[in-house]
Amino acid sequence: MSGAASLEFQTLTTTRPIVLVTGATGFIGQRCLSALADAGCDVHAIHRQARPPAMAGVASVRWHRSDLLQDDPDVLIAGIRPTHLLNLAWIATPGIFWSSPENLRWLQSGLTLAGAFYRHGGERALGVGTCAEYRWVPEDLREYSSLLAPDTIYGKCKLAMSQALEATAECSGRRSAWARLFFPYGPGEPSSKFISAIIGGLIRGERVACTDGHQVRDFLFIDDVADALVTLLLSNVVGPVNVASGAGVSLREIAAKVCEVTGADPALLRFGERQAPVGDPARVVGDTTRLCSEVGWRPQVGLDAGIRSTIAYWRQAFGVR
Amino acid sequence: MSGAASLEFQTLTTTRPIVLVTGATGFIGQRCLSALADAGCDVHAIHRQARPPAMAGVASVRWHRSDLLQDDPDVLIAGIRPTHLLNLAWIATPGIFWSSPENLRWLQSGLTLAGAFYRHGGERALGVGTCAEYRWVPEDLREYSSLLAPDTIYGKCKLAMSQALEATAECSGRRSAWARLFFPYGPGEPSSKFISAIIGGLIRGERVACTDGHQVRDFLFIDDVADALVTLLLSNVVGPVNVASGAGVSLREIAAKVCEVTGADPALLRFGERQAPVGDPARVVGDTTRLCSEVGWRPQVGLDAGIRSTIAYWRQAFGVR
Repeated sequence: MSGAASLEFQTLTTTRPIVLVTGATGFIGQRCLSALADAGCDVHAIHRQARPPAMAGVASVRWHRSDLLQDDPDVLIAGIRPTHLLNLAWIATPGIFWSSPENLRWLQSGLTLAGAFYRHGGERALGVGTCAEYRWVPEDLREYSSLLAPDTIYGKCKLAMSQALEATAECSGRRSAWARLFFPYGPGEPSSKFISAIIGGLIRGERVACTDGHQVRDFLFIDDVADALVTLLLSNVVGPVNVASGAGVSLREIAAKVCEVTGADPALLRFGERQAPVGDPARVVGDTTRLCSEVGWRPQVGLDAGIRSTIAYWRQAFGVR
Repeated sequence: MSGAASLEFQTLTTTRPIVLVTGATGFIGQRCLSALADAGCDVHAIHRQARPPAMAGVASVRWHRSDLLQDDPDVLIAGIRPTHLLNLAWIATPGIFWSSPENLRWLQSGLTLAGAFYRHGGERALGVGTCAEYRWVPEDLREYSSLLAPDTIYGKCKLAMSQALEATAECSGRRSAWARLFFPYGPGEPSSKFISAIIGGLIRGERVACTDGHQVRDFLFIDDVADALVTLLLSNVVGPVNVASGAGVSLREIAAKVCEVTGADPALLRFGERQAPVGDPARVVGDTTRLCSEVGWRPQVGLDAGIRSTIAYWRQAFGVR
């Protein structure tokens, strides 16, 4: 898309947000594209591969090719002139992302991207962080009163990015927000993630080695995650906002639910056969006062419906029943 | 200095730290150079101007010219191959630094520098942060139990840098520490800083407009700051460490001390004639348990001696008495 065309388009539709999405081909990014289109946005997305991905239901998205870890985003941003930025691009490889040096490259790249976005007239960026920015204590984690003390390279780089994004926005007299994601799950998540690993094992009738399963986590269904992110992006709320359900559920409860829906034998779940990672916290639950009261958003999909949907996805993927 | 010469030098003196200092010509940096030389380090320092600065008592320092906001530090680091990095370079212009966009450029530059340092075999970096990374509450501020919630662009970029430095070190399996400076003062500080502004006014017999002066701050004499930084750099302590005196003193007490030493008329101090900045905190004092117990360092210069020394400096500078 040329700069001139972009300018003309903006003139015609000044009230329509022009949203640039990075990480658009990922687990969360894909869902955000349709949610943004549904919200009436003009959606631009970045892809790294030679050809734009074929995604169902997101025909109106305009794709731009760029490798954000290599390319200077200045020309791209100048051409699109987005009013909003949803910056999801980051390393997310399961098992790797916690301690990969690539986190530092995404931090550098995110800083450069945020600078270009605001320099070219961007109004509002939403960066996406993590509950791993907090010190994990059993109490509900709150944006402004819980300690920030990340233990991992991933958490440190995300916390660094949150501060840098806010500073960049403030230097331009513009706004930013920062979503601290808790535990997204749902169709399309990597098969090694807890809920999908349990489902995958059980629907294939395999024994599943688990930790003791008493850990409590705050899960949020992927469609809700995308909807919350888009609502937050298009709101006027600034600063960190937990994107969470606000409710804790133990891994044992999740597993029991999966057994119930799939009709699998609960004896396949071998609790205590696996060691939990060192420092695995007892409870990680987000306080959602800001999300509910200030952003005005609440989850739409209950745990039961979310798990059913995820089970249906894996049944289809595995060709089971 | 060529890479070959550097390598040879390292071989000859493997136990002697090779320290690279950035921000070496600044208020704090200058003092660190002599403290490092006194501690037996091989000291390399960066200067931006055409010629290395002439500094008394630091003849053994080897100067390298570089503009860290412009130049890739890779070749420089590869040539010096420092074992230790004392990274003081940052914007420090009084009145400007709190909200300048240059903070973001120093963050970018600091990230690049830290990456190059560890990539070329660096063992241990000390970054220099600020008490402005904390939420300013009246209680003593502690590294691991006080909230991090910077209000300013300066504080945000410093907090971001602290996280990024720690992540960079961990990615390389190396160490880093982060000094959170409270309120350094002493000879050579900008004349607009509180203690020097009071001294400057009083020794010239001028009226000095002050805020109400009940604010309590944690001041540390510049020679102590430099000594603490060098001790921390050469220690094995990792993570954030407050560099502070641990004792709060009100601005009124400071002013009374200056009157006492200079013999100035206390009536020259016009408390309440100036409005304190919005949000000016009542008390900012650092807990020094980590500095005292883990680093094993304590202040050497009391407030009385420090203020006398600062008064002597300004008397000479102004040619008074």
